[in-house]
Amino acid sequence: MNNIIFTREGGVKLNGLLKNVASSDIYLLMDTHSRDYCMEYLQLDIPACNRIVLMPGEHCKSLEGVKKVWQVLSDNCARRNAVLVNLGGGVITDMGGFAASCFKRGIACVNVPTTLLSQIDASVGGKTGVNFNGLKNEIGTFSIPRYVIIDNGFLSTLSQRQVLSGFAEMLKHGLLSNVDYWNELMSVDLSDVGGTEFLELIRKSVAVKSAIVQEDPCEKGVRRALNFGHTVGHAIESVAIDDDLDICHGDAVAYGMIAELYLSVKKMGFDLELYKNIRSFIRGLYPRCMGVDNPERLYQLMLHDKKNDYPGVNFTLLQSIGKFVVNQYCVYDEIIEALKQI
Amino acid sequence: MNNIIFTREGGVKLNGLLKNVASSDIYLLMDTHSRDYCMEYLQLDIPACNRIVLMPGEHCKSLEGVKKVWQVLSDNCARRNAVLVNLGGGVITDMGGFAASCFKRGIACVNVPTTLLSQIDASVGGKTGVNFNGLKNEIGTFSIPRYVIIDNGFLSTLSQRQVLSGFAEMLKHGLLSNVDYWNELMSVDLSDVGGTEFLELIRKSVAVKSAIVQEDPCEKGVRRALNFGHTVGHAIESVAIDDDLDICHGDAVAYGMIAELYLSVKKMGFDLELYKNIRSFIRGLYPRCMGVDNPERLYQLMLHDKKNDYPGVNFTLLQSIGKFVVNQYCVYDEIIEALKQI
Repeated sequence: MNNIIFTREGGVKLNGLLKNVASSDIYLLMDTHSRDYCMEYLQLDIPACNRIVLMPGEHCKSLEGVKKVWQVLSDNCARRNAVLVNLGGGVITDMGGFAASCFKRGIACVNVPTTLLSQIDASVGGKTGVNFNGLKNEIGTFSIPRYVIIDNGFLSTLSQRQVLSGFAEMLKHGLLSNVDYWNELMSVDLSDVGGTEFLELIRKSVAVKSAIVQEDPCEKGVRRALNFGHTVGHAIESVAIDDDLDICHGDAVAYGMIAELYLSVKKMGFDLELYKNIRSFIRGLYPRCMGVDNPERLYQLMLHDKKNDYPGVNFTLLQSIGKFVVNQYCVYDEIIEALKQI
Repeated sequence: MNNIIFTREGGVKLNGLLKNVASSDIYLLMDTHSRDYCMEYLQLDIPACNRIVLMPGEHCKSLEGVKKVWQVLSDNCARRNAVLVNLGGGVITDMGGFAASCFKRGIACVNVPTTLLSQIDASVGGKTGVNFNGLKNEIGTFSIPRYVIIDNGFLSTLSQRQVLSGFAEMLKHGLLSNVDYWNELMSVDLSDVGGTEFLELIRKSVAVKSAIVQEDPCEKGVRRALNFGHTVGHAIESVAIDDDLDICHGDAVAYGMIAELYLSVKKMGFDLELYKNIRSFIRGLYPRCMGVDNPERLYQLMLHDKKNDYPGVNFTLLQSIGKFVVNQYCVYDEIIEALKQI
């Protein structure tokens, strides 16, 4: 975590980190949202031609988008000691990280994530990528950013739904770590995500992810723990995309965790009462989950998930809070029953 | 060098290495040349849909070419344990290496270089890439292939010019290593490049490069030694491209070495008589060098080379055979005089 800076003065920190880099060697990648709401705050004094602004949204996370970044870098004769600053949510940090990792075989990048989801998840751990052929993150690299600046001052511009979307990943980290942190999360005040107390919760959450990633940077084994809630969650997201439903990543993961905790009760002895408490907590916090009324369809989507390397569906399950087991294969009947609990 | 296999039975070795990989997980990238002349020799039993054939030539070394590889992998639902076999010259191993390093954030690849140049140089050292925006290898990664199979049986299909092109890199490795190896190269029989003796020379040449790369995998310092002859060589190649001259990479590097050895005589005390011997040897072996009649133009091209990070031209120079010094900046008058020696 040495390269991750938790601060409420992101602009000052960034300028300090870059003080020995010529301003003509600094490039700033944004989408129109982060340009309008976050750029001024950074006070980054670089030439206008070094600013790269993309349209917002997942559909821009493509090779075409990355080519635009490469074109600006190349047209400006960016050198190997250039630094790309990625200012935005997960789409920008994923794309910018990929662009930097391949330009002249790798220039440095600094991630400045501006959403809770990207602060917790997307900007930490070295996964970069773009969507290709209709598949999420089909093309990408493992590449660690030089620095990540996590400033929760940005979060006050977010809607409650955007906050909840990131908070689902914090809940996941809570379930993967220990009861104390989980209990802190259960009693958090989500109306003050820009405060110093919440910054401390973010730091703990990132520490959970970092510890797991450090043990297995290239996702050969234990890193799959971070997939908890996501096997079902990704299937819900796929239905949402196909049916044009309004579901955030965090909503899908939150409800995915209910189903996967139920499998944990059935197969790993996870405590039934605790499961019921968690289910109530999630149901109370997140909008009613759409897209789960057809378990058969969700099952078929899971079968084709890229993380599967076995004829069956691979889950990370919990024995208790903090005790996870990766690579648990579940069969059709078990999965259908679990999906009915959402 | 553990992952580099020198053999005269490349097909047998490859099949042995892949015996535990399901044939549906093996993909074979070729151009039409290596398909026609080299594929049969490999005896690789994989589904027809797993064969990817590109057009030959440097102009196909592009993002569009890489997208074709990704499309086939993605359409066939290639998994993370898939293996991409790159069969061809440097264009194929560079492109295939890049494609593999980014597909699903990295699948394994095995390079089977079929030209002398790619056996000596392009398939060893982990540089992958494609041309972009008119610039060579502007986009790429550092990524080590799982294995490299070097079988000089392929070389008997090459023309003498193709052999000489690769041999220039061997001469470079000779000058960077020691007098014994250099003398072996001076007395080599280039009419028998498919024999066991020549395979031993290839092994020595690759060992020189591997040792330097191992010390500095990401080209921060000593790896620049491998750039010997290339500062001038790349400028000659640029003139050749602009003026549509018939110059191979090796021709340009060979004549680049003459100019850079002259700079070594002038600035580093390299022995004058030895320089003259080497110049005679190169002039005797390589076609008369075109594209060098305008030193001013070559100088301007060198000034804009991407490896420069200083206002001037950066060379690797030699004190004697085996004693190189990187990051030597030379001024206009010195460079013009050196270019006139070619």
